[in-house]
Amino acid sequence: MSAFRVLARDGGARAGVLSTAHGDVQTPVFMPVGTQATVKAVSSGDLRELGAEIVLGNTYHLALRPGAASVRELGGLHRFMAWRRAILTDSGGFQVFSLRERRKVDEDGVTFRSHLDGSEQRLTPEIAMAIQADLGSDIAMAFDECPPANAPNAEIDAAMARTTRWAARSLEAPRAPGQLRFGIVQGAVDLARRRAHLAAISALPFDGFALGGLGVGEPPDVMHAVVDAIAPEMPEQSARYLMGVGTPADLLAGIAAGIDMFDCVMPTRNARNGQLFVRGGRVNIGNTRHRHDPEPIDAGCPCECCANYSRAYLSHLFHAKELLYYRLATVHNLRHYLDLMAGARAAITNGTLRRYWANYLATRGPSDPDPDPLPVSPPSAFDAT
Amino acid sequence: MSAFRVLARDGGARAGVLSTAHGDVQTPVFMPVGTQATVKAVSSGDLRELGAEIVLGNTYHLALRPGAASVRELGGLHRFMAWRRAILTDSGGFQVFSLRERRKVDEDGVTFRSHLDGSEQRLTPEIAMAIQADLGSDIAMAFDECPPANAPNAEIDAAMARTTRWAARSLEAPRAPGQLRFGIVQGAVDLARRRAHLAAISALPFDGFALGGLGVGEPPDVMHAVVDAIAPEMPEQSARYLMGVGTPADLLAGIAAGIDMFDCVMPTRNARNGQLFVRGGRVNIGNTRHRHDPEPIDAGCPCECCANYSRAYLSHLFHAKELLYYRLATVHNLRHYLDLMAGARAAITNGTLRRYWANYLATRGPSDPDPDPLPVSPPSAFDAT
Repeated sequence: MSAFRVLARDGGARAGVLSTAHGDVQTPVFMPVGTQATVKAVSSGDLRELGAEIVLGNTYHLALRPGAASVRELGGLHRFMAWRRAILTDSGGFQVFSLRERRKVDEDGVTFRSHLDGSEQRLTPEIAMAIQADLGSDIAMAFDECPPANAPNAEIDAAMARTTRWAARSLEAPRAPGQLRFGIVQGAVDLARRRAHLAAISALPFDGFALGGLGVGEPPDVMHAVVDAIAPEMPEQSARYLMGVGTPADLLAGIAAGIDMFDCVMPTRNARNGQLFVRGGRVNIGNTRHRHDPEPIDAGCPCECCANYSRAYLSHLFHAKELLYYRLATVHNLRHYLDLMAGARAAITNGTLRRYWANYLATRGPSDPDPDPLPVSPPSAFDAT
Repeated sequence: MSAFRVLARDGGARAGVLSTAHGDVQTPVFMPVGTQATVKAVSSGDLRELGAEIVLGNTYHLALRPGAASVRELGGLHRFMAWRRAILTDSGGFQVFSLRERRKVDEDGVTFRSHLDGSEQRLTPEIAMAIQADLGSDIAMAFDECPPANAPNAEIDAAMARTTRWAARSLEAPRAPGQLRFGIVQGAVDLARRRAHLAAISALPFDGFALGGLGVGEPPDVMHAVVDAIAPEMPEQSARYLMGVGTPADLLAGIAAGIDMFDCVMPTRNARNGQLFVRGGRVNIGNTRHRHDPEPIDAGCPCECCANYSRAYLSHLFHAKELLYYRLATVHNLRHYLDLMAGARAAITNGTLRRYWANYLATRGPSDPDPDPLPVSPPSAFDAT
């Protein structure tokens, strides 16, 4: 039986449900990023109240600190971070291949130096899956080689071939009870390469499939063209996951193309940097025009931040570098992203996704007649994830 | 009608209720310190869930940023920080007199340079009361001169005399509707001076009386000797407030001597530095022995931190400098302080305060058979309050 079921369609978009060992996940879904066993600045209780059904944990970061064996002995990642719903763990591939100067790849795996203490470490498909088994995540990602956006074709081809061989080894490794496994499709921004690699990866018995190596610096329209072409060709009966993407506009475009799952540090990282999402744009809370504004960030938002606090107060906390700022801003941005996805699910069910999408991008919230344009920035593996 | 009523006595200790424009405050009470319109790392919702009935705001800090007029225009400090219960504001005296090199005192007031931008600022009794009226606090403190612990006698005597004159001027200044005003007794650690100044200040029609200038570096037993001698001689029908004190042991000693109100940055500041209070001692979460400990900080504590998270998880967050650490640690320490006070209130009502006090100091929590000794450190006006 498949872990994923499509419940409704609207054009290429799907509303569905992904069944995991820690509950069902309604899709399309945004997964807040909990790099170091915490979504930065919020508690598992906050995430529960926000209605998050799944969060992401990072194999690379958790393996280095506190260590996979330590988390296993403490009852697994769910118990460690007091989160009872689903967790997806990445394989560490994206982080390891971001360590340009500090890693050495061979056919068996990757040797690299920790960004924390410089110690020599190793990841192979078997080690990455063993770590994810120790963490006890509900969805484990296969270990992949992720070349940079501007890599020469020969390097991209070699990475695709190796990722395919590593995918097969990842599937042969032991896993945690009930753990689902997703394969990752590489191929940069060339459609022929993407199609060839999709054929190779989708021939393997994964529970779901992901597009990796996008949103890593290429122009947004190039990324959207790849997603528009490839997402509809991904296996129809399995969940489709666009890794590391993106802005609200990116998510809506991905949903329309048939993507079911997303993760990105943008809502949490941008919150900490003073960028708060509103419909159709964002508010830069550090801007002096907010210093005396008694209105909330978004008068239509039901989050703890908007229900209680003014822009003036958030501006004060931000300028005073008060810890409360980071929590309130993160709660708001996650609420915005999760509500965006809930609205998209409802719109797909009603057959109104295109209108929902256009309305979102066109709306200037009543509390912010002139929001700043949406941010576009590639994720970083290490900068304040 | 007095704002304060004694409901029960146990030796010199009193359980009572202080009526403010924003609700009743059960005493003895500990007031979390919200220097910059936020108790560091927690929200007003967190404080409500913790059961706090009153918090403290700092006139000096709020006057510099965001400014008293700004807070007034935004509806006052309660609305600004979304806190509907009581607020006490200090007068700025303690902070201003901590600016040793940056201030100049005259009979009318104090000229000083802001620690934020070096700009020249001025506080007088009238300005301090006007700021507190703008903030709209429920209890305003008179503007006082607070000499250092090691000041020569002539300086202490002059400060006492000036504080008396400033107290009278503070009472003549306009106040917010329903705002109570407390006078401050100085006199360093000399009992004769304390008694003389208590006589002068208590002759003025204040709603409550505070002991200032203690817990500023003098040995704990010297501070306790002053409190033991002077607290019982403070007006019987008014609330008695020991400013800026202290450890759980200091609070219990103060309660036994007849003090009703306390504030201190210790629970919040020490939380951020890794010191978590348990019965009879404290846990230094940075210590390596907690890295793999599946037990909570205090198995008997009902706080969000202890109910959900292990010492190992807190240790991980602390070492990774994750923002969530600061909130969880602060919630725990405030829960510990507020529960200590609730227990003391109940014990006074039951006539068992001495046993409660001794039990607290003697208890080694089951989850921490060997806690570190209680910290003793003077508050600082500026270091991470």
